[in-house]
Amino acid sequence: MQGDRRHLKTDPWRIVEEGFDPRFAQASESLFALGNGVMGGRANFEERYSGPSLQGNYIGGLYYPDKTRVGWWKNGYPEYFAKVPNAAFWLGVDVRIDGEELDLAAVGVLDFYRETDMRRAVLTRRMNVRMQSGVEVAVEAVRFFSLARRELGVVRYSVTPLNRAAEIEFSPYIDADVRNADANYDEKFWEEVSTDGDAVHSRLRKSGFEAAWAQRVVLDGEVFRCDSRPGCVRHTAVVRCEAGQRVTLYKYAGICSSLNHEPGELVAAARAVAADGAAAGFDALCREQEAAWAARWHSCDIGIGGDAAAQQGIRFCIFMLLQTYTGVDTRLNIGPKGFTGEKYGGVTYWDTEAYCLPFYMATAGPKVARELLVYRYNQLGKAIENAAKLGFHDGAALYPMVTINGEECHNEWEITFEEIHRNGAIAYAIFNYIRYTGDKGYLAEGGAEVLLSIARFWAQRITWSEARKKYVMLGVTGPNEYENNVNNNWYTSYIACWSMRYAAEAVAWVRENNPEAYAVLCAKRSFDEQTETARWREIDRNIYLGEDRELGIFLQQDGYLDKVQTLAAELDPAERPINQHWSWDRILRSSLIKQADVLQGLYFFRDQFDAGTLRRNFDFYEARTVHESSLSPCVHTVLAVQLGLMDKAYELYLRTARLDLDDYNCEVAEGCHVTSMAGSWISVVEGFGGMRIVDDTLTFEPRLPEAWRSLSFRVDYRGRVLAVRITAGRIRIDVEGAPVDVAVGGRRYRVETNIELKTE
Amino acid sequence: MQGDRRHLKTDPWRIVEEGFDPRFAQASESLFALGNGVMGGRANFEERYSGPSLQGNYIGGLYYPDKTRVGWWKNGYPEYFAKVPNAAFWLGVDVRIDGEELDLAAVGVLDFYRETDMRRAVLTRRMNVRMQSGVEVAVEAVRFFSLARRELGVVRYSVTPLNRAAEIEFSPYIDADVRNADANYDEKFWEEVSTDGDAVHSRLRKSGFEAAWAQRVVLDGEVFRCDSRPGCVRHTAVVRCEAGQRVTLYKYAGICSSLNHEPGELVAAARAVAADGAAAGFDALCREQEAAWAARWHSCDIGIGGDAAAQQGIRFCIFMLLQTYTGVDTRLNIGPKGFTGEKYGGVTYWDTEAYCLPFYMATAGPKVARELLVYRYNQLGKAIENAAKLGFHDGAALYPMVTINGEECHNEWEITFEEIHRNGAIAYAIFNYIRYTGDKGYLAEGGAEVLLSIARFWAQRITWSEARKKYVMLGVTGPNEYENNVNNNWYTSYIACWSMRYAAEAVAWVRENNPEAYAVLCAKRSFDEQTETARWREIDRNIYLGEDRELGIFLQQDGYLDKVQTLAAELDPAERPINQHWSWDRILRSSLIKQADVLQGLYFFRDQFDAGTLRRNFDFYEARTVHESSLSPCVHTVLAVQLGLMDKAYELYLRTARLDLDDYNCEVAEGCHVTSMAGSWISVVEGFGGMRIVDDTLTFEPRLPEAWRSLSFRVDYRGRVLAVRITAGRIRIDVEGAPVDVAVGGRRYRVETNIELKTE
Repeated sequence: MQGDRRHLKTDPWRIVEEGFDPRFAQASESLFALGNGVMGGRANFEERYSGPSLQGNYIGGLYYPDKTRVGWWKNGYPEYFAKVPNAAFWLGVDVRIDGEELDLAAVGVLDFYRETDMRRAVLTRRMNVRMQSGVEVAVEAVRFFSLARRELGVVRYSVTPLNRAAEIEFSPYIDADVRNADANYDEKFWEEVSTDGDAVHSRLRKSGFEAAWAQRVVLDGEVFRCDSRPGCVRHTAVVRCEAGQRVTLYKYAGICSSLNHEPGELVAAARAVAADGAAAGFDALCREQEAAWAARWHSCDIGIGGDAAAQQGIRFCIFMLLQTYTGVDTRLNIGPKGFTGEKYGGVTYWDTEAYCLPFYMATAGPKVARELLVYRYNQLGKAIENAAKLGFHDGAALYPMVTINGEECHNEWEITFEEIHRNGAIAYAIFNYIRYTGDKGYLAEGGAEVLLSIARFWAQRITWSEARKKYVMLGVTGPNEYENNVNNNWYTSYIACWSMRYAAEAVAWVRENNPEAYAVLCAKRSFDEQTETARWREIDRNIYLGEDRELGIFLQQDGYLDKVQTLAAELDPAERPINQHWSWDRILRSSLIKQADVLQGLYFFRDQFDAGTLRRNFDFYEARTVHESSLSPCVHTVLAVQLGLMDKAYELYLRTARLDLDDYNCEVAEGCHVTSMAGSWISVVEGFGGMRIVDDTLTFEPRLPEAWRSLSFRVDYRGRVLAVRITAGRIRIDVEGAPVDVAVGGRRYRVETNIELKTE
Repeated sequence: MQGDRRHLKTDPWRIVEEGFDPRFAQASESLFALGNGVMGGRANFEERYSGPSLQGNYIGGLYYPDKTRVGWWKNGYPEYFAKVPNAAFWLGVDVRIDGEELDLAAVGVLDFYRETDMRRAVLTRRMNVRMQSGVEVAVEAVRFFSLARRELGVVRYSVTPLNRAAEIEFSPYIDADVRNADANYDEKFWEEVSTDGDAVHSRLRKSGFEAAWAQRVVLDGEVFRCDSRPGCVRHTAVVRCEAGQRVTLYKYAGICSSLNHEPGELVAAARAVAADGAAAGFDALCREQEAAWAARWHSCDIGIGGDAAAQQGIRFCIFMLLQTYTGVDTRLNIGPKGFTGEKYGGVTYWDTEAYCLPFYMATAGPKVARELLVYRYNQLGKAIENAAKLGFHDGAALYPMVTINGEECHNEWEITFEEIHRNGAIAYAIFNYIRYTGDKGYLAEGGAEVLLSIARFWAQRITWSEARKKYVMLGVTGPNEYENNVNNNWYTSYIACWSMRYAAEAVAWVRENNPEAYAVLCAKRSFDEQTETARWREIDRNIYLGEDRELGIFLQQDGYLDKVQTLAAELDPAERPINQHWSWDRILRSSLIKQADVLQGLYFFRDQFDAGTLRRNFDFYEARTVHESSLSPCVHTVLAVQLGLMDKAYELYLRTARLDLDDYNCEVAEGCHVTSMAGSWISVVEGFGGMRIVDDTLTFEPRLPEAWRSLSFRVDYRGRVLAVRITAGRIRIDVEGAPVDVAVGGRRYRVETNIELKTE
């Protein structure tokens, strides 16, 4: 796609596309994708479309173990990469007008309008088209994934002949005979179990997950002809319409998987969902949808005054996050593309702990956030097996870089075996969750066990250097993936030692506060607190952490200063992003950094460093960071705000908030960057809103970009909903629920219902 | 394959297998493989064999650009991996006895004998089998690739019914409808052009190389029925034989490729080769073969007294090298498996320069050795393109890690972009060639141009570290591939600086000795000697070369001493080879070394280091080296002999010389380790024979292992053939040709016809 990549209109609550341009068709499929936290799909048209398109419908938690593709095998590589399968296309409604197929790639599009109403997660498309035959018709298609009924998808599809009478044929179908575009060896993931009338039942090869889809179609007074083939059910009806007469098809699809039903009952379950939906009717389902979404927005909306593009950008981020994960099922997690595309396989990365958790904690409440922790707790056994495969022992756990069921899927040695800081992020998430929610009890209910298993890993992975007389961490890849297999990556070593310290605190807390759980833990994990924590402390005391005293900075890794010190600002813009223009060899040897690395550590452990240290490291590393990961600018934004570097903060923020809407990286056609959207939320709330927990108190140090008149956001904090509104020099906080203590400008206040304060 | 992997008999001049054990069938296909330097093939049976088998016939210089298989694409990766295609099975003779197929997997094998006579490269197989029908037959099959006629293959196949009369059906065929077992995406490489009577003509997809095969079959008085299908020509004749009557089929196959013929003339050429072969007759061809091979052996045989296994081992190494490359064609080179298997694609590695060149220099003469240099000279343009792809400029050359046509084929970033020491080996080969042959003129005829292009690469690849105030070499992989992306690998930095020094010397020599060539060189390569060599010298003077002064050793790389210092001797034998038992992660972090790294440098540049330095480095690194590359023990053997560590030297030698015959690594079924066989030769001649060039004089410092009574070898040195015979305390040198100066025990002698001296 060349030229202007912005094809959407700015609107505070809607994503709007006016006019049809096939060049943007695939981008819009991503941007208008819908989901309800357990399933979702790309905004493919209901009717046939013969232009370039990536069909995508996804059911969270199902996966196919796709045979690994690898250049040169290394011991310890996984055999497969788990991929979320592209599932049945349940939306399908083939439409023929006087026998001619309605296909936007073939007919004349006179008028085209599409919007997602983010307030209620409903996609509406209206268009007027002229068929080859000369008949013009108006089409309106409305769809949503029900948030109230998680197995129901709904379509309303209306056609009105405009300039003369016409015969309209509707042929709603569900096609389970689908493939993944990214299958490594062109394998078909699904096999048909049965196709019967209105329902199709399929099984995923190898993994054995099953799913069934059933459709109930309603078109006033019409009788449908059933016309199925294996893997595809279809009903067809023909209606004679006068000019100006609108005919409307309703389609209710039940989508059920073996995650929630016995295989033998899947077809019946899917049929029941569809039938119940039809019985409730479209309008009632719409009202349910509006109510369910209103409740979601209540605790998490962000308002930005004076910057319409920023307003739409941040709402879109929140909206996509809400669509992707709702915390109803510990087997689910947040894939980097959510339900908007196949890329990255729909699997779980450290993005969840490092970037997504704060959003869900603050908007969906502790229960949902805790589900994300429990997801990893449930996979602890696999993390221990994973570490054992690499030669670690005694219950050391290495969580995978990429997973869907706890097993490692990634197979590039420099990532799989070396990008182990992910283990630190998983420990940090437990700390962060407890810090925000106050739910220390989680330590006794899984937290401490995960922490001690992670600490055991670090204690083995860190080795003693006789030459340095220090503990060292050899052969790691830090968050900056533009360098691999380095020694003593500061971030990794720091978070490793922090993990060990925190694990020691955690087990001590459990011992003191829940002796029963402590006894179980010690027995289950053969844990000898005194010996093991002594070892952790010994490593922590003697770890090598690189520093350059002259520059006053932490060293990203051994030898970093030996590199030719190129600054991002010196780059020819034509060479950016460097990962598309430079050889890998040149990238590896340059001082340029893909994403926050040392600064990721300063962000996580902000309280442990003074402002001077932060400033020196920020100035040094920000100048060398190219932000070629969508996860990078948000961390720098938060730090820039804390340092009062507002121009820099705003510049960085712009790179994250409308990344997909404006398709900065020319890749939104593949799907949206869902996990990085949580980073945008962090930029706003923790950055400009200055929200942090300091000394167990909710603290605000707001600072707005010049372009913003106001910033308001809502967060769920320990059972209350706080509505925060920041304007130049002022902050107002309204509280629903019990009174809460907050700190602003270094002073503490008890807020009963609301408070309004001056800020600097 | 379980249990005893030795299935061959020890014999000084023969490879002998007695009895048929299907478990060894594929290993024997590799070990009995034949070749004539331009083509060759595995020892598949002529008759059908339905047991496990890897069919393999290879024509040197042809390749198929097989689509690359990669985990995660990196900029700068090649699009394809060039592979030597498995070519037509020209040997085929289907045999039926009274209508029953002769297939060793189906009949009773009463008696089985197979030998390669290494003196003449003829494979003979004799066996008695009992068919299901009860008839017993004796079979004798003899084959060779003609060394005198490089496009001719010959088979003589005799059958004798033993216990009763039988009807013998011979059906000799050539089947070009073949595939590679290692095709990345199961693509078929060849497509048929035509099949006509006795000839088949095929074309390689993508690369467009063509080849034709024709057979001429002779069976006294019999008329053959021609019975071909596309891609496969076949002639069938049936003979009625009395018991005890021997019937013999002769098959002459012409094998011609578009490397040497116009495509339109290929079929005619192949027919002419076959017809000429048939006209000469089997016995005459055999005599030609014996004469041609006798000439080859004359300058290169090695005799070992008192150690029959070692004797056979070293002859097998020499034999395989002679079969693989004869220097008749600069487009050919030495693939790691020669013509014995598909693995490693039959392409060229740095093995050629670092390991193979000394053998060919000393046994095949300067012309053949020079062909190996010219091979790289001819690919210089591609090496410059390759460097440009990685961002290098101004005619800097980076030779590929793996190639067949000059383009890089390897696509693991840590090798492709980082294992750049290969460039140093290519420079060293020029030096080594000139040192041995005295042919300085080669500098003006291509050598200097290659050297300056390599020097330009190093001058760009080495960067200035402001932090160290030294030049550094970041992001490399040394010969020890058990560590990747390291900084300041001593070997790489050392050979890089040496390359620049030698390049400066080389261009100065050309300037002084061949001003005309110098002018052409400067113009062609925009070479400003003064400026560029000044830069090379500046880097050389200020390069960082790691050393540990306390240990008195060179440091393999930055941080090497930070590793936990595990010694190879401490390993549990059950964990060896570690590359089959340890995770890659563990290997990377261990101090264990795959193959000579610092010691490779001490071997190449032996004269530049004193014995104490050699000893300290040898003791330190040998203790940490697991020798899991077939290329490793030979270098350590040479150094151990120089240090007088004879037990160590002999122990290391045993790991290399019979690697394939005894199948130490359980992988000979895939093919033989041809390039490492040149390492075995180095062990013997440079190691125990102590042959080196010192101060332009051929020098011997022999030291025999205790187990050896004598060692004799022949080398071609500057136009003479020297026969050297070493016994305990004595050396005798016979010279054919002009008198030659040699040095033994620090003293120089002129040898007119022979000399016999005491050695310590």
